[in-house]
Amino acid sequence: MASFKKYRVGGKFRLSHIDPDDTPFCEGDENAQRTELDALAVELDELQDLLNAEGKRKLLLVLQGMDTSGKDGTVRWVFSRTSPLGVRVTAFKAPTVDERARDYLWRCHAVVPRTGEIMVWNRSHYEDVLVPVVEGWIDKAEAKRRYAQINDFERLLTETGTVVVKCMLHIDKDEQRERLQARIDTPGKQWKFSMDDLEVRTKWSAYQQAYQNALVATSTDHAPWHVVPANSKRHRNVMIAQLLVKTMRQMKLKPPPPDPALKGMIVK
Amino acid sequence: MASFKKYRVGGKFRLSHIDPDDTPFCEGDENAQRTELDALAVELDELQDLLNAEGKRKLLLVLQGMDTSGKDGTVRWVFSRTSPLGVRVTAFKAPTVDERARDYLWRCHAVVPRTGEIMVWNRSHYEDVLVPVVEGWIDKAEAKRRYAQINDFERLLTETGTVVVKCMLHIDKDEQRERLQARIDTPGKQWKFSMDDLEVRTKWSAYQQAYQNALVATSTDHAPWHVVPANSKRHRNVMIAQLLVKTMRQMKLKPPPPDPALKGMIVK
Repeated sequence: MASFKKYRVGGKFRLSHIDPDDTPFCEGDENAQRTELDALAVELDELQDLLNAEGKRKLLLVLQGMDTSGKDGTVRWVFSRTSPLGVRVTAFKAPTVDERARDYLWRCHAVVPRTGEIMVWNRSHYEDVLVPVVEGWIDKAEAKRRYAQINDFERLLTETGTVVVKCMLHIDKDEQRERLQARIDTPGKQWKFSMDDLEVRTKWSAYQQAYQNALVATSTDHAPWHVVPANSKRHRNVMIAQLLVKTMRQMKLKPPPPDPALKGMIVK
Repeated sequence: MASFKKYRVGGKFRLSHIDPDDTPFCEGDENAQRTELDALAVELDELQDLLNAEGKRKLLLVLQGMDTSGKDGTVRWVFSRTSPLGVRVTAFKAPTVDERARDYLWRCHAVVPRTGEIMVWNRSHYEDVLVPVVEGWIDKAEAKRRYAQINDFERLLTETGTVVVKCMLHIDKDEQRERLQARIDTPGKQWKFSMDDLEVRTKWSAYQQAYQNALVATSTDHAPWHVVPANSKRHRNVMIAQLLVKTMRQMKLKPPPPDPALKGMIVK
């Protein structure tokens, strides 16, 4: 297995030094990769069962990335073998009037995972240190304040039994062009296309910079960021599945010990 | 394919006339059945994609049944191929203080499916016409009032774009004994066992009668009940998957037509 080290965000991390075309976690031919992904998905299902049986901890997977970077596809393939009983997904859109009337962490806190559950956030509170920064709605001091608030919030989660895994799906501007074009040109996919995506696309560099700053400021020991080269969809899936399996194996999950009081009990 | 007619609850339906051991929807050997279930699960995934693409309607699957009747297992196998993006599950437990402070439909209304989504209720508002009836907390007149409230509530849902599918997983008392015993005897399963299950088990006949009354009173044209012989897990899964596929095919789902404004558009 390749090492995650290069992709884990630390103090000197530069997003621009990660090549979105890289595929370090892909081994063998296409078939071998499919087989591996399926095996990982099956193991994730087993691990989630154990997470539920243990009944103490929970897991939060945060997915961020530019439009078309593959957040939905990641969920589809990485969790292709897990029961919907144990995995929930929340997709964060532009905040509603009701959500804007509260602090930006309010709607996130409302949907943190419950004990035994894997929760996936498709976009997240990180949108609130990306969009407002790029649009100039908040200044540097406010962005800095938010990074600290986010770190505090995530520390609360981890200190209360949540393992937080954060992945930034890293594609390049050419790849996005192709994917947007495919949405426009394919009748069955056109409903996924929005003119807003083109508008955001014009601010590509500003978003890369905002990501750079946010990633470095919020990659903590308790909730580190990983950047996932994601031009290759298979690589993206395999790398994230590997990261999750590795993380959950390290949790050393196991069901509660047998209850002595039930020993030899017969149901009538 | 077998006919659902016999299992659809109508005015003269008798729960006691349905044999939990029946397997009318199982065809061929075990392997053939597995293959069929997988094919159905894949088609359900495609249909859910279309439900989402269409962006107008939603589907609610209500699962009811005695303890160990296989509600969790149904979710696991019937939705083994659908992305957690499109299928959500809500498990209703005994109402909390906050929930008891409202009418019994309040917590259900809060988690109806959103457009494009399949929502599964693992237990549901029907618990409130089963438990209180068996325990004698409400009288016949109140039960009748609740049946009517439930029918009204479900009509609201169907009139606003929700297709409601309701399945009662029908096992017999012997089958439950075996399944409870297995939970007690298997260390890895013991965490699923609760002493409360034994208490409820002593009221088996009263629950069968409460189901009989509730099923007949709330099987409407807009939201009919199906009783699923469920001593065989494979039969239960195949029958429910077939019912869902049939129902969703009848919805004639399709993505929105291509937008003429996007024709020939090139992404830069």
